[in-house]
Amino acid sequence: MVTGRGDSGTLEWKVNIPGGKSETLVPESGFVCRIWRGLRGLVEEFLLKIWRFLEKAWGIGVDEPRKLVHCLKVGLALSAVSLFYYMRPLYDGVGGNAMWAVMTVVVVFEYTVGATLSKSINRTAATFLAGSLGIGIHWVATQSGERFEPIILGFSVFILAAVATFSRFVPSVKARFDYGASIFILTFSLVSVSGYRVEKLIGLAHNRLSTIAIGTSLCIIISMLFCPIWAGDELHSLITRNLEKLSDSLNGCVAEYFHRNGTVVSGGEDCSKKLQGYKCVLNSKATEDSMANFAIWEPAHGNFNFRHPWKQYLKLGASMRYCACCIEALNGCLDTEVEAPEFLKEHLQDVCMILSSCSSNVLKELMITMKTMRRSSKIDFFVGEMNSAVQDLQNGMKSLPTMLSVPPPNTAKGEPGTKTTIPPLMEVLPLATLVSLLIEIAARIEAIVDNIDELAGLAEFKSAKDDKPKQNQSTITPISDNQDHETMTAIQKV
Amino acid sequence: MVTGRGDSGTLEWKVNIPGGKSETLVPESGFVCRIWRGLRGLVEEFLLKIWRFLEKAWGIGVDEPRKLVHCLKVGLALSAVSLFYYMRPLYDGVGGNAMWAVMTVVVVFEYTVGATLSKSINRTAATFLAGSLGIGIHWVATQSGERFEPIILGFSVFILAAVATFSRFVPSVKARFDYGASIFILTFSLVSVSGYRVEKLIGLAHNRLSTIAIGTSLCIIISMLFCPIWAGDELHSLITRNLEKLSDSLNGCVAEYFHRNGTVVSGGEDCSKKLQGYKCVLNSKATEDSMANFAIWEPAHGNFNFRHPWKQYLKLGASMRYCACCIEALNGCLDTEVEAPEFLKEHLQDVCMILSSCSSNVLKELMITMKTMRRSSKIDFFVGEMNSAVQDLQNGMKSLPTMLSVPPPNTAKGEPGTKTTIPPLMEVLPLATLVSLLIEIAARIEAIVDNIDELAGLAEFKSAKDDKPKQNQSTITPISDNQDHETMTAIQKV
Repeated sequence: MVTGRGDSGTLEWKVNIPGGKSETLVPESGFVCRIWRGLRGLVEEFLLKIWRFLEKAWGIGVDEPRKLVHCLKVGLALSAVSLFYYMRPLYDGVGGNAMWAVMTVVVVFEYTVGATLSKSINRTAATFLAGSLGIGIHWVATQSGERFEPIILGFSVFILAAVATFSRFVPSVKARFDYGASIFILTFSLVSVSGYRVEKLIGLAHNRLSTIAIGTSLCIIISMLFCPIWAGDELHSLITRNLEKLSDSLNGCVAEYFHRNGTVVSGGEDCSKKLQGYKCVLNSKATEDSMANFAIWEPAHGNFNFRHPWKQYLKLGASMRYCACCIEALNGCLDTEVEAPEFLKEHLQDVCMILSSCSSNVLKELMITMKTMRRSSKIDFFVGEMNSAVQDLQNGMKSLPTMLSVPPPNTAKGEPGTKTTIPPLMEVLPLATLVSLLIEIAARIEAIVDNIDELAGLAEFKSAKDDKPKQNQSTITPISDNQDHETMTAIQKV
Repeated sequence: MVTGRGDSGTLEWKVNIPGGKSETLVPESGFVCRIWRGLRGLVEEFLLKIWRFLEKAWGIGVDEPRKLVHCLKVGLALSAVSLFYYMRPLYDGVGGNAMWAVMTVVVVFEYTVGATLSKSINRTAATFLAGSLGIGIHWVATQSGERFEPIILGFSVFILAAVATFSRFVPSVKARFDYGASIFILTFSLVSVSGYRVEKLIGLAHNRLSTIAIGTSLCIIISMLFCPIWAGDELHSLITRNLEKLSDSLNGCVAEYFHRNGTVVSGGEDCSKKLQGYKCVLNSKATEDSMANFAIWEPAHGNFNFRHPWKQYLKLGASMRYCACCIEALNGCLDTEVEAPEFLKEHLQDVCMILSSCSSNVLKELMITMKTMRRSSKIDFFVGEMNSAVQDLQNGMKSLPTMLSVPPPNTAKGEPGTKTTIPPLMEVLPLATLVSLLIEIAARIEAIVDNIDELAGLAEFKSAKDDKPKQNQSTITPISDNQDHETMTAIQKV
């Protein structure tokens, strides 16, 4: 191998290969090698993907064992419905139509009881309606002669399918009867189409209805008896968890701003996870909507009666997102490089921290109210405290300009960069925003309080008189005795 | 009728009824009357509800005629598939299994091409997979004797149903193969269960697959040939519309704050609708997610090729929601009773308005970029302008304390309520928040710009060289000539 500078003056490499044979051999074995390596890489990647998938699935199973239970329930329901085939006496009763029972179980069995009920009722009602209508139109068609029969049938399928499809675009229908509309189209087409060939139409319809009834009742029984998962419970605990997340985020966000340069950084990853909790609140609209839609189908269970005001949860969720939005903006605004002057920060730190901890106390108390489903005796007190903290903060702000203008005006005329006692408004900006957003957040928390109050009225929450809520409330720092609450609130409420 | 004060001193009414008969008659006719009125009320209410429903449906039809077209397409597809029954030669070919074709059409036909394709492919692939697996397990079961056959079959149904159900909880499977998993369970149960009775299993499986193929291909053809509605198009135009909404909301919000007491209130309802546009952005996550999931199934169409980076739209949507959150907070904070002093407002009005109009110019330019799918030559200029407006605003803020401290400090020591030239910081609060949030919004708009830039790179947007984009851009107030852009941007970019 010889290296040298070529004639043209550019640096070049001359490579002398010792033998021609080795030159042709190397790429060949390299080719096989490359294919082998490529294949191995593909297989390894594939196995790695499967491994990651299994890991993820395992994580889900460990985090939410109820999902595993749901899977076992589906398997159980399907095995049970298969019995209709395996056992001769049952098979003779229902005949080959047992297929419909299997299909019903697969399609109708959902994670929550509400979803299963909603689908079951939709399926049964839509099949019944469409079946009767189909038989009626079939009768009309047969009366009008062989020539018009297919025309009438085809036309009715076209019209009804179009109308039912269109109805699915109307939001109120979409929310509750989407599945029913699609089953309506299905059954009507099947009846009117097979009616043209199969003569025993009513027998068929009866058979189909009874197998569907078997399938749906099996689903409902299994989903309600074995570890039932209620959509209402899920919605209620989602809202409760979100209240806690809001509270944690708010507290963490403000504390982080004031202690950014301090040493009080505890928790680490867990802490930053808590800070980001409000993001879950922002993204939970879709889940809340679907859960509320399923919950209205559920019978009374646990603390919820049949006419529990689930719609109110949506209003509550909206007001919580409204509040989370402000926390989001707060988080963004505080993340600037502009540092407020230390003395100003100190001046406002206490009032800000008090306001944020009062606000999150209110949220925590609301969370307890939701968890125990008892009206809180302390909530008025906490709200009053929050309002007086707002007042304090406002007073703190009002006293500021006097502080700022103590030095003679000459020094203030210096450049904004030099360290005068009067900070340019620019440096106060993040602090002012913090204050303003904290006040806004307090106002939005009051809206949440009103919403939960309304919910408590509609759902007839019990009043807090026994010991249970007190035990729970001990997690919050006690501020004053219970007896003084009424008077304190009356004084402090702004 | 005699009125008087009773013995006990309370006010009471004595009513003398003239005849006993009339007393008994009145309630009777009243009862019938009440029933009649109640019934009429019920019927009227029912009719009113139907009327309102029809009105709403009519509104949807007028607003989005494509939804009507979709309904006609469903009707068409169903009528077409019914032909397999009505026409004897076709019927003889497929036999009674034509039912499956009807069912496939009803279940698979969705609003967008992507959704239809996704369901079709899921259904076909899952049926094929589950069918083969079912036949395989059935063969194993028959080999192991009559006694073990139902046990093996039942057990395999139980295990596979549980596993497939569990896989639906994994987010990546849920997003793309949810329907496939449910069809897999369905087919496998049907095959393994009916295999116990029906002997011609392979023929049945073949028949089912071919009818499903007929149904899905019919759906795909009709949904792609007649006025196709592409999920990708919907997602793209949703994002484009949302950019416009953000721009309008931002501009309107700031203008409303400064002109609140002025006479410049134009538009009325339309204007307030524009102001609320950001709320649509906040709530569009679910739609974006599902559209992006459907869009990846779609073939190349219009300006989108097969591997269009739809995932990037989700990132873009997230950054837009991030920005909308700030506008939400801005809207809330400006809605206070605290009025900033007039001279301060005037001092900052121009710079704030310039910043907000620069920001919405950037958003509008981004909207045009998305609409035309061409890289904008002006976007760098607009971003530069926005950044220099941010700088101006910051300078404006920096010059403020000098202005504020012009009067001797004695006057400043007066109560905050009295009209001194130094406003208490409290009064500046909403204005300071406005400034802070505007700066934050500008930063978040830059994130949107980056996201769209990335999208333009991934999707290979054309560069803007022909006349088309210029025509569109004329809606924005032209600020300088094209030639100066590069130098201007270089100077102004902060």
